[in-house]
Amino acid sequence: MSLSLNQWTTRRWSLAEAVDGCVRHSLPAIGLWREKVAEQGLSESVKLLRSAGLRVSSLCRGGFLTGGGLPGEEGKRAFARALEDNRRAVDEAAELGASCLVLVVGGLPGVRPGEALPATGFTRDLAGARERVAEALAELAPYAGERGVRLALEPLHPIYCPDRAVLSTLGQALELSLPFPEEQVGVVVDTFHVWWDPRLFEDIARAGRRIAGYQVCDYLHPLPEDVLLGRGMMGDGVIDFRPITEAVLAAGYTGDVEVEIFNADIWAADPDEVVATMKTRYTDVVLP
Amino acid sequence: MSLSLNQWTTRRWSLAEAVDGCVRHSLPAIGLWREKVAEQGLSESVKLLRSAGLRVSSLCRGGFLTGGGLPGEEGKRAFARALEDNRRAVDEAAELGASCLVLVVGGLPGVRPGEALPATGFTRDLAGARERVAEALAELAPYAGERGVRLALEPLHPIYCPDRAVLSTLGQALELSLPFPEEQVGVVVDTFHVWWDPRLFEDIARAGRRIAGYQVCDYLHPLPEDVLLGRGMMGDGVIDFRPITEAVLAAGYTGDVEVEIFNADIWAADPDEVVATMKTRYTDVVLP
Repeated sequence: MSLSLNQWTTRRWSLAEAVDGCVRHSLPAIGLWREKVAEQGLSESVKLLRSAGLRVSSLCRGGFLTGGGLPGEEGKRAFARALEDNRRAVDEAAELGASCLVLVVGGLPGVRPGEALPATGFTRDLAGARERVAEALAELAPYAGERGVRLALEPLHPIYCPDRAVLSTLGQALELSLPFPEEQVGVVVDTFHVWWDPRLFEDIARAGRRIAGYQVCDYLHPLPEDVLLGRGMMGDGVIDFRPITEAVLAAGYTGDVEVEIFNADIWAADPDEVVATMKTRYTDVVLP
Repeated sequence: MSLSLNQWTTRRWSLAEAVDGCVRHSLPAIGLWREKVAEQGLSESVKLLRSAGLRVSSLCRGGFLTGGGLPGEEGKRAFARALEDNRRAVDEAAELGASCLVLVVGGLPGVRPGEALPATGFTRDLAGARERVAEALAELAPYAGERGVRLALEPLHPIYCPDRAVLSTLGQALELSLPFPEEQVGVVVDTFHVWWDPRLFEDIARAGRRIAGYQVCDYLHPLPEDVLLGRGMMGDGVIDFRPITEAVLAAGYTGDVEVEIFNADIWAADPDEVVATMKTRYTDVVLP
């Protein structure tokens, strides 16, 4: 297991700066975001990564596949747009040689991430939204497989069920992955999202080689007003990391450990200091 | 199934006022809170309930059983105090003829509900905290059984795992209840807490006659800054109630449907209007 910087943790850095930062801090891998890759340009990003000799532990993110749950033509159009965007994300992941493309599957159809419920034009049909995800996956998995890209289903904390992911547990992600070859569809274990789950250890063991990514950050308590930013530096919250890391290792995971933190204070801090703290905390509280 | 007013929904009302309100609005049952019973006096409360002919669908709440997870003498004292308080709650439930005593089991040892993490003196040992709950239950269930009181384990939304309940899913509550006779220990299905759970329908069916209470309120999105107050009037949030109600009925539940809403706007409104709205919404969105 070695440490990877998910570039959203040092959000102020461009891709070029984050690549430099990884080299400066002797990190062998980086987790990328599509927005940052686009800003740098895809081929320029590939060049920078290769010349630095960095592994790409993940590309964030595809997903938002539930729009097909809207009625009629609107639903059909939303479904087609989502597939198109996800195929593009697969192509980018292939080009970047990313170990996986992380999928945040989307919330209730018609509910926009981080926005209030619209007065009309959304559906409460949670079971239906989950079916739409399975349908989209059946389209995307073979496409990804042909390009050597592994899709990684990320269960999100249930607090994000309305607007970001109707996929809330590792067990549920695993079930969704099973119809596909394990090199095509895996699952992400992100401590922030799953630490509370009473079935976590059983499901990590069950997931085994399906684990396509292991992301760590702490769960702050209380959460800030914008719950998206409730992720903290390891050791600053309530999570007991070691047993989870041990379970992920015991399941056969041999990939990188990515630190992905969404946090206003961390984003405001000097990125070099953030990376230094992250390395210390990784040794102190994450590693068994 | 008939409708019950959990008195925290009309929090401005005293117990006497809430009893009057139920009679005025032809509600056959009420869910009580210990604080309100204490304010009115236990025997006076019993008298008021009897003369109004109201069923007591639940007494809220016992629990907070995890303090024993603190080290040494502090843990022993916390465990003893929790058992003592819970025995008192059982006695009150017996006196009131409550259908069940709701247990909110408690969060990580040393983390106080609604407060920030202390700098020291708390533990991240989630598995241990869950064991403490099972131990406490083994003490309390026979005590409750002898007094004809049913303990009702309430799984809380995972957002409350740090400070209020290390019991996060209906399945987990059910597992915890199984060692005890079903008339001694049951589970609560509260829509706010479990709506997102991919195993919800399977676990409701599995729970069957273990379902000791069915509480409804909506899940608002986005949640307010104080996440405890993110409960809304049915129809104001993201929950599709009918399938859940149908599943609870199909599982064999014959008790009352309690409306329990923690919400600053609803608490500020005229309680009579709140009860009237609650009755309309119950018919419109909760009943199959």
